[in-house]
Amino acid sequence: MATHPAARGLADDCAVLEIGGETLVLTHDTMVESVHFLPGQDLEDVGWKLVATNVSDLAAKGAKPLAALLSYQLGGDDLAFLRGLQSALQHYGDAALLGGDTVSAPGPKTVGLTLIGRATHVPVPSRSGARPGDGVWISGPVGAAMLGLEALQSGVGNSSAYRRPQARLGCGQELAPLVSAMMDVSDGLLLDARRMAEASGVTIALDYAAIPIAVPEARRDEALRWGDDYQLLFSAPPEATLPSGYHRIGTVRPQGPQPLLLDGAAPAGTLGYEHG
Amino acid sequence: MATHPAARGLADDCAVLEIGGETLVLTHDTMVESVHFLPGQDLEDVGWKLVATNVSDLAAKGAKPLAALLSYQLGGDDLAFLRGLQSALQHYGDAALLGGDTVSAPGPKTVGLTLIGRATHVPVPSRSGARPGDGVWISGPVGAAMLGLEALQSGVGNSSAYRRPQARLGCGQELAPLVSAMMDVSDGLLLDARRMAEASGVTIALDYAAIPIAVPEARRDEALRWGDDYQLLFSAPPEATLPSGYHRIGTVRPQGPQPLLLDGAAPAGTLGYEHG
Repeated sequence: MATHPAARGLADDCAVLEIGGETLVLTHDTMVESVHFLPGQDLEDVGWKLVATNVSDLAAKGAKPLAALLSYQLGGDDLAFLRGLQSALQHYGDAALLGGDTVSAPGPKTVGLTLIGRATHVPVPSRSGARPGDGVWISGPVGAAMLGLEALQSGVGNSSAYRRPQARLGCGQELAPLVSAMMDVSDGLLLDARRMAEASGVTIALDYAAIPIAVPEARRDEALRWGDDYQLLFSAPPEATLPSGYHRIGTVRPQGPQPLLLDGAAPAGTLGYEHG
Repeated sequence: MATHPAARGLADDCAVLEIGGETLVLTHDTMVESVHFLPGQDLEDVGWKLVATNVSDLAAKGAKPLAALLSYQLGGDDLAFLRGLQSALQHYGDAALLGGDTVSAPGPKTVGLTLIGRATHVPVPSRSGARPGDGVWISGPVGAAMLGLEALQSGVGNSSAYRRPQARLGCGQELAPLVSAMMDVSDGLLLDARRMAEASGVTIALDYAAIPIAVPEARRDEALRWGDDYQLLFSAPPEATLPSGYHRIGTVRPQGPQPLLLDGAAPAGTLGYEHG
């Protein structure tokens, strides 16, 4: 679909709509059983995660959640799902669940959420604004969700990073006025960094050892390719004064033959989770 | 779900959001293969219908489409789907497809659309405003989609009323300032009329013979229980001066033991298509 003009808007994670002097940011994420969550997984966690993934899209735009519409395929513990959904909406600024649609259907459980937010800064950051000379930064370590999924599957260890990811909503709002480009890392740091480079028409050169990880060093390569941590990846001009707590992981260079370099070479293998 | 506070918003088909001096109307409809469309049905028609069902929700609010977000499960002729979707968006006021989400997943094809519109009249009509003494009206005949589905299944006759339903967008805008309550008929006239009566705390008394139908008289009972025609059902005070072309089909009465009467008695059997 990516080459069809109608589908181009789908390449970014959010839409921006100017209306009545306000700038709205809209996003929709769909999650399917066996693809985005485990069969039989606690639906309260699924409800939470559906909100968190959408909030993460708004965070990357520096937007505050206002209202949500739910698309919900009935089945299983529907009330647990709603509990998780509502507690996450409340956690992230008390956005109102305004409506939506329920369906009864066969097949794997499919749930979707449209989240509408209000921009706190204009212009709204995009993934296409990285410029040569900018620093490349990340809001925190990657890999925790990978370990969380393993814990959930094995029944040993803490699975909360996978089950209840934390969207960086506050970070996004404080960063929006300072960044040249921003996006959330949902499909793997290397893949999403390459997307930012391609959207911006630049090369992004990452420093392998500088990337913070939440896993043993031996699993660094995997962590860089694993999504679901919902950190914010951003570029900022050298003169920007960033708040503390962010990690510089690379530099934006003029566009070269490779959009993404890791210690000077194109990274090998799969870079992350490619959607269909 | 209907008794859970979190789910109450889902009972209506649209959400209303006031922002920046504007009144936005938002809706989301999901369609699932084998439930809302036939297996193997032309995806260009499915794309059209997904837009039309959402536009119909906005029509009942007197709103104009502005922008759309798509949730799309890949598979089959994706470009045909997008063609149908885009031509319907263009047909109904050229709303922009701003973004969304694509997923690859097993199971029946599931597609969803969030449509954002701008109210042309405030207060925005709801289904809860019908008052005793009001007339009850419909924008056109019911039953055409039923015949259309039969034509599609048999391969004989014109199936367009089922494949390419027409949302009454212009009607909704001209009616919004005049009605006391309005909704679209998506699940069957009798069922939707009962919903309006229950939401308004009244009894709606319909005149069986006055209801316009697009089918032979012998199939009147079925047509009154069949959805997918997307006519507008509305109530209006006796003093309202309505444009021509609408059909008076009943009267709003004070709340009695039955929310819906058909020629004075509660109608027998299933009233329409009940969602899960």
